[in-house]
Amino acid sequence: MPVHGRPSFTGVFHTSPDGYLFCEDLQVKTVQDEFAKASEYGSPFFMYSKRQIGDNVRSYVEALQRHDLPYILGYAVKANNNLTILRILRDLGCTAVLVSGNELKLAMLAGFSTDKLVFNGNGKTQWEIELAVTHDVMINADSLFDIDHISSVARQLGKKVKMLLRMNPDIDPEVHRYLATGSAVSKFGIPETDLDTALGKAGSDDNIDLVGLHCHIGSTITNIDVFRATVSAMLRYNNHVQGRGFRLKYLNVGGGLGINYRKYIQVCMCIPSGGELIDSIADKIKESGLCLILEPGRSIIASAGILVSKVIGIKRNETRSFLVIDGSMTEVMRPCLYGAYHHIQLIEPTSGTRRYSVVGPVCECGDYLAEDIELPIPHEGCGLAIRDAGAYCASMSSNYNMRVRTI
Amino acid sequence: MPVHGRPSFTGVFHTSPDGYLFCEDLQVKTVQDEFAKASEYGSPFFMYSKRQIGDNVRSYVEALQRHDLPYILGYAVKANNNLTILRILRDLGCTAVLVSGNELKLAMLAGFSTDKLVFNGNGKTQWEIELAVTHDVMINADSLFDIDHISSVARQLGKKVKMLLRMNPDIDPEVHRYLATGSAVSKFGIPETDLDTALGKAGSDDNIDLVGLHCHIGSTITNIDVFRATVSAMLRYNNHVQGRGFRLKYLNVGGGLGINYRKYIQVCMCIPSGGELIDSIADKIKESGLCLILEPGRSIIASAGILVSKVIGIKRNETRSFLVIDGSMTEVMRPCLYGAYHHIQLIEPTSGTRRYSVVGPVCECGDYLAEDIELPIPHEGCGLAIRDAGAYCASMSSNYNMRVRTI
Repeated sequence: MPVHGRPSFTGVFHTSPDGYLFCEDLQVKTVQDEFAKASEYGSPFFMYSKRQIGDNVRSYVEALQRHDLPYILGYAVKANNNLTILRILRDLGCTAVLVSGNELKLAMLAGFSTDKLVFNGNGKTQWEIELAVTHDVMINADSLFDIDHISSVARQLGKKVKMLLRMNPDIDPEVHRYLATGSAVSKFGIPETDLDTALGKAGSDDNIDLVGLHCHIGSTITNIDVFRATVSAMLRYNNHVQGRGFRLKYLNVGGGLGINYRKYIQVCMCIPSGGELIDSIADKIKESGLCLILEPGRSIIASAGILVSKVIGIKRNETRSFLVIDGSMTEVMRPCLYGAYHHIQLIEPTSGTRRYSVVGPVCECGDYLAEDIELPIPHEGCGLAIRDAGAYCASMSSNYNMRVRTI
Repeated sequence: MPVHGRPSFTGVFHTSPDGYLFCEDLQVKTVQDEFAKASEYGSPFFMYSKRQIGDNVRSYVEALQRHDLPYILGYAVKANNNLTILRILRDLGCTAVLVSGNELKLAMLAGFSTDKLVFNGNGKTQWEIELAVTHDVMINADSLFDIDHISSVARQLGKKVKMLLRMNPDIDPEVHRYLATGSAVSKFGIPETDLDTALGKAGSDDNIDLVGLHCHIGSTITNIDVFRATVSAMLRYNNHVQGRGFRLKYLNVGGGLGINYRKYIQVCMCIPSGGELIDSIADKIKESGLCLILEPGRSIIASAGILVSKVIGIKRNETRSFLVIDGSMTEVMRPCLYGAYHHIQLIEPTSGTRRYSVVGPVCECGDYLAEDIELPIPHEGCGLAIRDAGAYCASMSSNYNMRVRTI
């Protein structure tokens, strides 16, 4: 069980005294050897810990229950759409947050109740809206045209759709610009200046039941003050909406909590846990009387997954040494796309250390997993793990260079 | 037929007087409408011109023949691995250049003769080398360890492998750092300082037939002087190798020729055609007596493809207007990954113009196709084309957000 108020370092992934990495009770190297025997496509592969997923969910749930807040904890499927993971999360009491019609189909396959699902997206197409409305999914409307499209579908289907308005509160989440979704230059959400127009559309429409406000200001957020500022802005909007005669039920503050990808090398960098996020906003939510909707993805699943890979060979050029591994940008795109850090460690014992750039076999210089890091000296075939690869790795993977997808 | 010495602007994609885009004789809008009727997944889609592929190949071939150079024109499959395209290129007399075992399997399926295929890659795995050696594919060895691995497989299989050494000549190709593959900090190739060691390994090995030298210094290259400098460096290496008693047959100068992605808005920016590239290096190659191997990808297929998409809706925030389309970073990753420009045009007539950022429906701010460009004012459902999407679009695509892959 996680200690309240601290990130959950429960040692689900731990190294044995003789130098082997374990995932719960499984020696990772043994699993790697078995997979290699089974198929030429047996490496690399993702490996997930069910226990870590449970710990991460409980960090949120315990705080929500301690503060006695009504809530919907909706896992953001885009972070990782592995069906087994979705079923685990359903069993843990989560609902799901969706960004496409296909994610909705998958969530139904995983057995989620559709009336607690939330459907997001700035470019929902006709068939996606039809599917969501048919199954009574809550929909976050992203724009004035999105309200019109949703209304039109609901009218055609003779349904009343539960709608939240996605606001763009213009808050800087202090993250990579591709991950900042709630600033004025972002493509997402309804600007404050359009709120009254949106209320005019939604409020006068018999096919729309306006149930709440939504925002999602970004991803990989590490500063808890950003969430407090977001909740304050959203409650201001709620007051305004109340003043216009609406009684809302939900405040959906989105997701976006980061994790400490550098915790292995920078233990002093403090990133809030799910529980701490809740602690920081609970008083304001409680006072509002609204049901809190959360949309965490990364903070639920990132730390629960690793990519297990192995060393193909080691080469030097004039300035550096390269560890060429069979994992690549096609499985873990985040270093290439965002310059993100993922910790890499050997899964078996070796001696000595050296500095390496860890690169994959894809024919592109962007195909690196780490640049110039200190590692134990591996041999060819040595196994290694790319840590915190549970979120935005498998779901963003490609077949570039005709590489086989690893799920 | 292309005009010699100039890029091939043959009008394969052209706009009719009444404002509709055509691909050869097909009105693109008509194709879009038919696809939309057929499936909810009917948009977006890639559309390719066989005639443009032929023009692009002939630009190289005519110059090669005019200079009476012995050559192998190997299409880089990683640019686009569509099987129909591969068969067209095979019929045009191209061979194929491969970066994975799966690409080799596909090339065999497409009917290429394996003994003229070339296998590249900095991290070839055991089974991939076995497949290449078994089928007498030429292999570019990327490193000292790669030579050892290839030798080991050839010995086990009792084969003699045709090997080229991939050199890293440390030349700056003046492109995005992810696309610079022949500089000293790149993971690719054998540095000059290791050439003698490589020759020692390859020359003393009964299972290796050292047939040539290879390099590939980058991608999207627009300065023809870079190619001349590369050939000069490679011929210096060839002289050195001759001095060590080897007689090589091939000089493989890789690919990397860029195209003018901005030709629609910057007609004065002159980017060499395949023919002009050949013209610039022909004298040196001729003098060497070597057979020239070329590995073009982008310059063969980029201009032959478009992504056909349509407008979902138009929204404004406080600073800009967004055209939300059903195409996205999952089909065209290059703007997000490299900040690359792709020209966008409507495929049907409208009036007036306005400035828009063109974005997709993927839940990420990196999901944009163009930032703040001038476009005719479209209506919802209006069709548009992302130009020059034949290379490094479909082959780099993903299912992020569970989007369906478009091939």
